[in-house]
Order: sequence, then C-alpha cells, then structure tokens
Amino acid sequence: PLVDKDVDFAQYFCTYSFLYHQKEMLSDRVRMDAYYNAIFQNKHHFHGKVVLDVGTGSGILAIWSAQAGARKVYAVEATKMAEHARTLVKDNNLQDVVEVIEGSMEDITLPEKVDVIISEWMGYFLLRESMFDSVICARDRWLKPSGVMYPSHARMWIAPVRSGLVDQKKGDCDGAMDDWYNFVEDTKTYYGVDMSILTKPFNEEQRKYYLQTAMWQNLHPHQVIGVAAIIKEIDCLTASVNDVLEVRSNFLSSITMENTRLCGFGGWFDVHFRGRRDDPAQQEIELTTMPSVDNGTHWGQQVFLLHPPIRVSEGDNLNISFLMSRSKENHRLMEVEIGCEIIQSSGRSLPPLQNKFYIE
Amino acid sequence: PLVDKDVDFAQYFCTYSFLYHQKEMLSDRVRMDAYYNAIFQNKHHFHGKVVLDVGTGSGILAIWSAQAGARKVYAVEATKMAEHARTLVKDNNLQDVVEVIEGSMEDITLPEKVDVIISEWMGYFLLRESMFDSVICARDRWLKPSGVMYPSHARMWIAPVRSGLVDQKKGDCDGAMDDWYNFVEDTKTYYGVDMSILTKPFNEEQRKYYLQTAMWQNLHPHQVIGVAAIIKEIDCLTASVNDVLEVRSNFLSSITMENTRLCGFGGWFDVHFRGRRDDPAQQEIELTTMPSVDNGTHWGQQVFLLHPPIRVSEGDNLNISFLMSRSKENHRLMEVEIGCEIIQSSGRSLPPLQNKFYIE
Ligand SMILES: Nc1ncnc2c1ncn2[C@@H]1O[C@H](CSCC[C@H](N)C(=O)O)[C@@H](O)[C@H]1O
Ligand SMILES: Nc1ncnc2c1ncn2[C@@H]1O[C@H](CSCC[C@H](N)C(=O)O)[C@@H](O)[C@H]1O
Repeated sequence: PLVDKDVDFAQYFCTYSFLYHQKEMLSDRVRMDAYYNAIFQNKHHFHGKVVLDVGTGSGILAIWSAQAGARKVYAVEATKMAEHARTLVKDNNLQDVVEVIEGSMEDITLPEKVDVIISEWMGYFLLRESMFDSVICARDRWLKPSGVMYPSHARMWIAPVRSGLVDQKKGDCDGAMDDWYNFVEDTKTYYGVDMSILTKPFNEEQRKYYLQTAMWQNLHPHQVIGVAAIIKEIDCLTASVNDVLEVRSNFLSSITMENTRLCGFGGWFDVHFRGRRDDPAQQEIELTTMPSVDNGTHWGQQVFLLHPPIRVSEGDNLNISFLMSRSKENHRLMEVEIGCEIIQSSGRSLPPLQNKFYIE
Repeated sequence: PLVDKDVDFAQYFCTYSFLYHQKEMLSDRVRMDAYYNAIFQNKHHFHGKVVLDVGTGSGILAIWSAQAGARKVYAVEATKMAEHARTLVKDNNLQDVVEVIEGSMEDITLPEKVDVIISEWMGYFLLRESMFDSVICARDRWLKPSGVMYPSHARMWIAPVRSGLVDQKKGDCDGAMDDWYNFVEDTKTYYGVDMSILTKPFNEEQRKYYLQTAMWQNLHPHQVIGVAAIIKEIDCLTASVNDVLEVRSNFLSSITMENTRLCGFGGWFDVHFRGRRDDPAQQEIELTTMPSVDNGTHWGQQVFLLHPPIRVSEGDNLNISFLMSRSKENHRLMEVEIGCEIIQSSGRSLPPLQNKFYIE
C-alpha cells in the first residue's frame, strides 16, 4: 500500500504524544489568538451545534467550542494524548458536551453528522505532515451539506529572501568535506583502505543535508527582498486530496531592494476563518505565518537556500517555477523544485537556475 | 507480530544509510584498531577461509578480511549503504573475493556455510539496537560446526559514578516545570482554560526525559567512585536470543573514594576476539569502552542518574540489583531497573532505592 499505517504511526504521531510538544503549540500566541477569536467572535457557528475537532491534541479547540455553546463536540485524537484531553475536559466540567475519541480520523465512526469541522492541521509550509488529508476525509464523511469548515481557506506564499544562513550552511558543508578528506587520508594511512571513491556520494549527502534541506527560520521582514506571491489557494470546503498532492506554480516576482543578495526563497502560509458563502463568519479571522517582528509563530518560515547567492537589485525581475510534491518514501514529507530566471532591470538575463529541495 | 518489519526498517536502519554515520564509526580509532588487529594478527583464521560480515555498512570489515587472505567474503547489509560498500570493494579491486548482498541477514540465503562470522553489532551499553539477534540468526544458519566468531565474547560492566550531569539535568527539569507553571497561568488568564490538572503527567514526562533516560557520557576514570562489576558475560558462539532478552544481576560494590557523591551508575561493555577453544586466536584482542582519558569510543558510557545524589565515602558497601529488558514498544530499546542498598562503613544502612530508566 502507498502508506504503511504502522510505520506512519511510529514515525509521525510519536511527537504529538508528548505534552511538551502540545505545550509548544499551546504557547504560540498568534496561533491561539486566531483560533480563540475565530470561535468566540463567531459564536453563532457554534451555539447549539455539533462540532468535530480533527486531531484534538490536548483538547483545546474542543473545549473552546463547548465553551462557545456547542451542543456536542466530538474530539478525535490518534495518540495517547487523547487521555490527557479527556482528563482536561472532565476537569473543566465539559464531559457532557465533549466526547474524546481515541483513534485515527480515518478509522473511527461518529453517531451523527456535524455542523462544524474545526482542526489545526497546518504543518510547516502548510502541507508538511499531509494532515489535511485527514480533514478532507472527515469532511467528506461527517460534515452536513450545510456545514462549515474552521479554517475555511488556506494559502501558500513564497518570496525572494536574503539570509546569512546560506553562508553558515555553506561553511558547515565545507567543514564536513574538510573532515572527510582528513578521514580518507587517515583511513588509507592507518587501515590500508582507500575510501576516496566515496567522496562524491559523501559530498552529495552533505549538500543535501546542509543546502538542499528546507530550513526553519524566523525571517525578519527586512530579509524579504522582493514581491511575495501566492502559489496555492485552498478552499477547505471543496478541496480534494488530489488538489493538494502537488503544488505547481509559475509566477513573476521582482526585487524591491537596492543592491542585495538573492540567497533563496522563503515560504509561509496563512489560513482564514470565513465560514461559508451562505453562512459567513460574523468576524473574519486571519492566521498568518508571514515574516514578522512581533507576531512570529512556531511555524516560522521554510527557507530554500540558493548557493552561491546572486547579486540582485531593485527592479530585477524573477521568473519562478515552483513544484512541490510528496516524497515517495514518506508521504508526509515533501520534495520541492524551484526554477528561477533573473532578468536584470537592464534587460540582461542571467543563466537560469534549477534547484531541488527536501522538506524533512 | 512482535516486530513489525517495516516500522523497524523505517526507524532503525535509517541512520545507517548515511555515509556520515558510517564515517563516525570508521573514525573511532579504538574500535578500528581492535577489529584491524583482530583480523591482521590472526590471519590464520582468515587465510583461504569463507567469511560472513553481518551488517557490513561501508564494507570495511569485509575488505580487511579479504586483504587478510579470505577465499570468499559475504558482506550482508540491510540498507542502501550496500551500494557504497560494493563501490568501495570494486575500487579496492576485491570484487572477486567480496560479495556484497543487500538485504536483511534474516531474509537472505548464502550459497555455502562459512568458517568465520565477523560483525560489529554492539550498540550503546552493548545490547541497545538488539543487533546481536541478527548475528545469532546468522550463526545458527550459516556457521560451520568448526566456525569462529569475531568477536567471540562480550561483557557488560557497571560501576557507581559521580557526575555534575545530575545537577544539570535536575536544573533543566526544574526549568521546564517553571515554564509549565507560567504556561498554565497564561492559558487560564488569556484563554479561559485551566490546565493545572495536567501538571502531574507533565512532570512525569519531564522527569522521564531528563532524569530517567540513560545519558551518553564520556566519563573520566576519576568519575568512577567504586568497584566496577561484570553483570553479563556472553559467549558469542553459544548464546541464544533467549540469553540476551534480559540482563539480570545482583552484585556488591564498594565505594573507593573519600567523601563524594553517588550520582548514579555508569554502564559500558567490552568484547574479546579469542577465536574458539579448539582453534584459538594467535593474538587475543580486546575492545573496551570503559571510561578512559585517551581511549574513549563513540559508544561512551551510558549513565543512569540518581536524584538526589547520595553522600558516600570509602568503604561504604553497595548492594545492587540490576534488571534490563527490552521495551515493549520497540524491541531495540531497553528498560532498566536499578535497586541500591547502601551499607555505610559504620554499619548503618540507608533506605533502599529503586529506580527505573530508559535506554532510548
Ligand atoms: N488522522 C488523524 N486522526 C486523529 N488525530 C490526528 C490525525 N492526524 C493528526 N492527528 C493529531 O492532530 C493533532 C494536530 S496538532 C493540533 C492539536 C490541537 N488541536 C491544538 O490545536 O492544539 C496531533 O495531536 C495529532 O496527533
Ligand atoms: N539484520 C541485519 N541485516 C543486515 N544488516 C544489518 C542488520 N542489522 C544491522 N545491520 C547493519 O549493520 C551495520 C552495523 S554498523 C557496523 C558497520 C561496519 N561493519 C563497520 O564495522 O564499520 C549497519 O550498517 C546496519 O545497517
């Protein structure tokens, strides 16, 4: 089968079974404020309604939904965290409203259809973890035709950035190669085996690790050196798994900063809580993970480094192609290809670049 | 089944498929010297013989075996590292002698029985990773009745130690709890949910992480404050999987240092290359991972911390019970229980201690 359920459980769900990890998410004020406001400023969507929380973790969104007046909340969680959620629900005296169900969303059955599906399913650069698949599955099976999705929309963004990280990672990579050459020499001298034939694969492995793996970074807005573009828009009410298997986009950007270095691309996302067209939110709420001085999130941004960096300046135009697909070995991880053509403001084109990255 | 093969592969073998990790082992001079000397100072065991290398990794032990005159070497490796091993073998012009086989030892078939099984199967504190199971499997299926094991013997050691690590880890754990209390307060204030009921499980989780997880440490010999004891002896020629499922030992130790702190126990191992009784090594070789100033290994020692530390002094006697068994969730990880009774040199007994640890 495409996904081995046991492998997936052992690999993916492990971290979520620690309170420490749940606490990190619960301490993300931007994230918390967005969901809190989405719920309590749109009580009409919750009052007297049946709610499904996909991946309830500690139970926080289920508890808020109940506090906002839900008649019934089904809180589904795959890991042992479900037990803590149950404890918390009980301690907050909501056990008559919130029912915690331990199990995978894909496997469990609910006694009724629901009015609202709420879920915090977003991974790094939105789609890492592929948890939205489980939300789609829940929606198609359990949401009433008139039901509402929280959040209702999601978007992916990308922008050219500068970052000293590229120099640091290049240095680390070079350092690893220096070590390697010493190692090859020692192994020949002391142990009579010549390992130099492995220099190329070792170098590829190290480049992949240091330079081709997307980096978590909390970018400063000043590090964004050009126009950001939307590369994906998702309507959570209608999107299918097929719609999110791949993200493909060709777009133009331009440099907005005088004489700087293009060191790579930064990717982030936002989601919106808008209700549905025929049953809109009273108060639309936005949760954005864009570069920010005061409102950073635990998602940060994913940075795809370009080595060597390229000198660019205001008015230079970028013709970018972006393709993200799921890794064959682990469907929750991603592979990214970014092509970039630079047309300088003088009209001169630089040789096009094509780079491969991994979101691990 | 007890072991899900796919989960095991995804979790365990992953690291070994990186040259970087193989290089770390290949750079361990103590380890390398031991195997190198074991082979080249006992050429009579290899010359004209058929050798099986269980888990060949980069292929190093297979190549040495061939260089020492083996007629044929089967080099079995479960991960993609097998390809690099094959490249290396070819580049060193040994492809007629060394046959690299990609696959799990348990699954593959050899065309003949072998005279020697060589393997570097030792994990932290000897048995972590449970790779010796695969060596036993190989031995029972492929070793001739007159065959030799490299290494031939293994032992586990434990000793009382002092270590500032215990204070550091306690500090980290307390810090995590301080954070938690702030978090609980903030969550109540800003988001109307009282999480204090989770304080106890969070504390247990953090204690487990900081204080009950065995720590890798390169102990200085001066940190060993009492007599070291052997808690397990393995004859690699005859041991069965059953013999290594559990390590159980009751032993006495005594403190050999004036006025110090018992901060826990350090565990390490050694292996010997002695050939077999009726076909002994010409030169016996030892590989030890005991605390050492100049001859540390990448295995270091595993330290089991005792909190709070206990004041002890020369002549105090320790009555220790040790039990190690495999974790139910992952058979390659271990759970350890250590009981300790201290009888001071004055004759007074301190209240007995019983602690649980995890080797992760
Ligand atoms: N298919 C699935 N079925 C059930 N739970 C799932 C799931 N996929 C992911 N999860 C769970 O979803 C949670 C996502 S993290 C969000 C937790 C919580 N809703 C909060 O906002 O704080 C994790 O606890 C994870 O274990
Ligand atoms: N059951 C099994 N079948 C085949 N290979 C295995 C195995 N269990 C572990 N291995 C491999 O055994 C290696 C152990 S590390 C030792 C590598 C090499 N012999 C050296 O001494 O440098 C790893 O590469 C691991 O992938």
